[in-house]
Amino acid sequence: MIQLDLNHAFLKEDVKAYQDQVRAIDEALQNGTCKGNDFIGWLNWANNYDKEEFSRIKEVAAKVRENTEVFVVCGIGGSYLGARAAIEMMNGLYGDNKPEIIYMGNTFSSTYISQVMNHIKDKEVTVNVISKSGTTTETALAFRILKQFMEEKYGEDAKNRIIATTDKARGTLKALADKEGYETFVIPDDIGGRFSVITPVGLLPIAVAGIDIDALMKGLHEGMGEYGDADLEKNPAYRYAVARRILQNQGYDVELLVNYEPQMQMVAEWWKQLFGESEGKDGKGILPDSVCFSTDLHSLGQFVQEGKKVLFETNLYVETPMIDLTFPNDEANEDGMNYLAGKSVDWANKMAAKGTLQAHEETGGVPNILLTMPGMTSYDFGNMCMFFFKAIAMTTLMNDSNPFNQPGVEVYKKNMFKLLGKE
Amino acid sequence: MIQLDLNHAFLKEDVKAYQDQVRAIDEALQNGTCKGNDFIGWLNWANNYDKEEFSRIKEVAAKVRENTEVFVVCGIGGSYLGARAAIEMMNGLYGDNKPEIIYMGNTFSSTYISQVMNHIKDKEVTVNVISKSGTTTETALAFRILKQFMEEKYGEDAKNRIIATTDKARGTLKALADKEGYETFVIPDDIGGRFSVITPVGLLPIAVAGIDIDALMKGLHEGMGEYGDADLEKNPAYRYAVARRILQNQGYDVELLVNYEPQMQMVAEWWKQLFGESEGKDGKGILPDSVCFSTDLHSLGQFVQEGKKVLFETNLYVETPMIDLTFPNDEANEDGMNYLAGKSVDWANKMAAKGTLQAHEETGGVPNILLTMPGMTSYDFGNMCMFFFKAIAMTTLMNDSNPFNQPGVEVYKKNMFKLLGKE
Repeated sequence: MIQLDLNHAFLKEDVKAYQDQVRAIDEALQNGTCKGNDFIGWLNWANNYDKEEFSRIKEVAAKVRENTEVFVVCGIGGSYLGARAAIEMMNGLYGDNKPEIIYMGNTFSSTYISQVMNHIKDKEVTVNVISKSGTTTETALAFRILKQFMEEKYGEDAKNRIIATTDKARGTLKALADKEGYETFVIPDDIGGRFSVITPVGLLPIAVAGIDIDALMKGLHEGMGEYGDADLEKNPAYRYAVARRILQNQGYDVELLVNYEPQMQMVAEWWKQLFGESEGKDGKGILPDSVCFSTDLHSLGQFVQEGKKVLFETNLYVETPMIDLTFPNDEANEDGMNYLAGKSVDWANKMAAKGTLQAHEETGGVPNILLTMPGMTSYDFGNMCMFFFKAIAMTTLMNDSNPFNQPGVEVYKKNMFKLLGKE
Repeated sequence: MIQLDLNHAFLKEDVKAYQDQVRAIDEALQNGTCKGNDFIGWLNWANNYDKEEFSRIKEVAAKVRENTEVFVVCGIGGSYLGARAAIEMMNGLYGDNKPEIIYMGNTFSSTYISQVMNHIKDKEVTVNVISKSGTTTETALAFRILKQFMEEKYGEDAKNRIIATTDKARGTLKALADKEGYETFVIPDDIGGRFSVITPVGLLPIAVAGIDIDALMKGLHEGMGEYGDADLEKNPAYRYAVARRILQNQGYDVELLVNYEPQMQMVAEWWKQLFGESEGKDGKGILPDSVCFSTDLHSLGQFVQEGKKVLFETNLYVETPMIDLTFPNDEANEDGMNYLAGKSVDWANKMAAKGTLQAHEETGGVPNILLTMPGMTSYDFGNMCMFFFKAIAMTTLMNDSNPFNQPGVEVYKKNMFKLLGKE
């Protein structure tokens, strides 16, 4: 369970003053009468998900792990960020990543696409194309290139190495998959892209990466209870939601998600979509931003410490690292580092975090919210999903906005289609 | 040369109204009488750099490329961001990266350090440790681990596979390097970390990555002239500097650097250090943030389009991509994508950029600054360095702050040393 500490947040209002509003919103969310109520399938997903399909994900993943050197995830936005966040968090950045996972279908960059195609050309490949409709341009463009490559490389067998995660019945991709005979998995109708990491959208790539998705679903399920209470005192997700609104009332327009583990940076990117796309509307919302400390203390640290006071920090601490190590002794001590000899490097990381909090809070005057996760396991990932899902739903509904749509994303598409000559 | 277009920036003041101030600051910068004048060595570096040392960089790099599978760059902040930005921009993310370049010494993460050490253990390794003093904790910690590894692996020969980039005479690392007999390169006294990519700090790793550093220095040199005029009309770097100040006067506290090439994302990280650390002080400055579109249109796009109006965008366009490709035809056209058949994918990327600009500007009301680079060559990289260096010096001096120090970075260190028990 994620622990929340608001003692460093400089809140000028009492969180509990929002209890009545929170209770009313929670009721509307549970009853399905809130704004965006056609997209709240994630709420009870940990109970309602298709168990047969879940087993099939594990079977397909096991087969892919046997015959594949590169697994290409072809999707954009929620159709790749969640999987990538989970896989990097749980496997680390230089883990024994077999198969290699590569993300395509999320860019028009000709260099990126060309280099990936060249990189995979002599390898055993499986492709997972992920799109509700099949018409998302970046993804459809990359998939046509991938499909032709797979058919040239594998002939008839290509269809056994392409997996489509898409709508259960309609759409271009579903029709194509049925015709070609691809294995398919379903994107539910009532779970939006940025919440979809807990569906086959995320679960298949995560399972292919060798991660225990049963534990992920268990963490999500436990989170339903742990972050399910309408009582603010018993619900850290809702307290966090309220604290954000109070801090924006105090004039802070940017939230900086801070982590101390490089393998958490894609979690931050996933969080940026979840938060920015949910509440960035109606001229409202807090701009989500992120850093990885202590690395970025040597880039953005100066601004946080002494620059204009536009942001607050939300620290996402991890209690138990994936791997710890003991700092070695050196008799000669020419580098003067023996004061750390025999100490845990993770302990040093935590002292850096503690010293930074103190610096930013006391000297810098920056509000800090503290979140602590027990570890970086798949259970923790699933549990964290529910924490952030509940928090963003509450905090956005407090703005009287719909947390589950993204009407602003259509504007660039409309302009682009015109420029591209699409009818 | 970088082209600047301010026609989409919604400036409410005339840039030219700042001509007198700009001229006075430029004079102080050129004369060395401005704030921070002990760190303006970068200004004339393209003329003054040590030619003998530059040749030695190329020789050493050639040798490393012959006998090395993994080149470990051990440094933090400016001592790794510049090199990584340059190498990713010029080689791409899935290029033929031989040797593999890995960055260490920039984190206390025990998982990251452990996984990298495991990843390199059976490979041929060369280490480049980069630190002015040798006492930067993250770097010294990683280097002790690397040094012991190299000595165990290579015995006596380890010293031929460790290269130190450090102070010319003083400091812990210089003393150690001299004692052990490491090859050394010099970090100049008058060029700060975030400007150091043009010195051996950046040049050695860049050369090891197989990139032409002569062209980089040529681009930097040409930039001295192109961005050297005190006349605003003749100097896009200074016009950009003034436009930023005007936009902050208009209430925008965040600058979002936008690119459309995944291989430019580390350039954005490097820019964030350069800008954030230079002007984020005295309670002033614009918070630097970044996105890669169209990828992140499916995460932060919604916020930019319809969220609270806290930011302006600075688009860093690239005219000629590293690699273009033609979108293939498909007779069946089941994906409905034939409207792009025969078209250049880079052209589609540019139409996405154009449609996005229109969406954010016209419908979203977001100010947009347009910067266009000719390409992603090493010449372009060197030239871009001078553009951003001149811009950030000017824009920070307009705030009456010192662009070249970073006093705020010391605060967390002081707290951390106490917690770590360092005397």
